[in-house]
Amino acid sequence: MTTATIPNVTLTTQANVYFDGKCVSHGYTLADGSKQSVGVILPATLTFTTGAAEVMEGVGGSCEYKLAGSDQWLKSGTGEKFSVPGNSSFDIRVTDAPYHYICSYA
Amino acid sequence: MTTATIPNVTLTTQANVYFDGKCVSHGYTLADGSKQSVGVILPATLTFTTGAAEVMEGVGGSCEYKLAGSDQWLKSGTGEKFSVPGNSSFDIRVTDAPYHYICSYA
Repeated sequence: MTTATIPNVTLTTQANVYFDGKCVSHGYTLADGSKQSVGVILPATLTFTTGAAEVMEGVGGSCEYKLAGSDQWLKSGTGEKFSVPGNSSFDIRVTDAPYHYICSYA
Repeated sequence: MTTATIPNVTLTTQANVYFDGKCVSHGYTLADGSKQSVGVILPATLTFTTGAAEVMEGVGGSCEYKLAGSDQWLKSGTGEKFSVPGNSSFDIRVTDAPYHYICSYA
């Protein structure tokens, strides 16, 4: 099951633009005060660092990711999730259609 | 006054990607059922067509726009709005920092 919509959020109107637009996201706050973002990654290979631990949920397209310290690229698609430890980093590679995601903080 | 956040919306998780990512937006539905989107335009000159009439509200950066049938570029910045008739088109030019906007349907 893919999360197509998220109800009852307070949406931040300014986008977050990373890597000259290869990744764009919009942040929002849920009713319980927790913060998430919805975003899209265009075809590219990017490296993100994490502060808090993150969970990436695919809602369109697919990607491959490689966690810090690993040399294995793993695939993650629509309806699938992957976790990234806090204070770490991960590489993400999108080759075909853009990868759309929800990023939440574990 | 710039609209920094919008409360109580149902957010569509998949982004809208236009012109290979030069424009990215996320759509949402307000409590009253009306639909809007928040988006960002990276440095580029783009042409959009409209179905319903639109109102563009700047929430970051600035742009210049030219309505169909006009040869005049007009500036619109943060906290400012411009209207585009329905079943028409407009050119939009972003040269410096990305232009962040809220698009609502009049």
